[in-house]
Amino acid sequence: MKPTTYYAVIFTSQRNEGDHGYSEMADRMDELARKQPGFIDAESVRDAAGSGITVSYWESLEAIRSWKQNEEHLVAQEKGRQAWYESYKVRICKVEREYSF
Amino acid sequence: MKPTTYYAVIFTSQRNEGDHGYSEMADRMDELARKQPGFIDAESVRDAAGSGITVSYWESLEAIRSWKQNEEHLVAQEKGRQAWYESYKVRICKVEREYSF
Repeated sequence: MKPTTYYAVIFTSQRNEGDHGYSEMADRMDELARKQPGFIDAESVRDAAGSGITVSYWESLEAIRSWKQNEEHLVAQEKGRQAWYESYKVRICKVEREYSF
Repeated sequence: MKPTTYYAVIFTSQRNEGDHGYSEMADRMDELARKQPGFIDAESVRDAAGSGITVSYWESLEAIRSWKQNEEHLVAQEKGRQAWYESYKVRICKVEREYSF
């Protein structure tokens, strides 16, 4: 069951050229995130020009904080800044309402 | 100047096959949204498989409501359900904090 109040992490990024081990790590981080307490779901899209948006959904700000501090994730974040991203931005949001088709 | 408190609309969608006038309308909606009162910015990514995430940023919930009710946008929304999207989901969120690299 999805809780009434939940949070979204919007991660917008621009990849640089070449893989440099990125794809493997991205798959691993997705796998690891899904095992975190409070994880609800994640959606990710990247186009051919390297622009990407990933949105992950969490039960609480505490769950987001724990994931940010996860040891393996910290290594990936450092690698991201060194080797994979030209730029990125993270926004932590409270979902106020939703509807779908 | 970006206001201290602002809102994000996360629009995740799955396009169907073929264009059916979609690209032209998407460009027009982007152009129109940027002219709305309270619009801050928008980012959009769609991959080759038709999965897309668009996030737009707004100064207030009122600004989001006005854009949703914009006449030309209402026509596009109807066309979206009829002709362009297999599915979509809209989440309206309050941005709690952000950081970038």
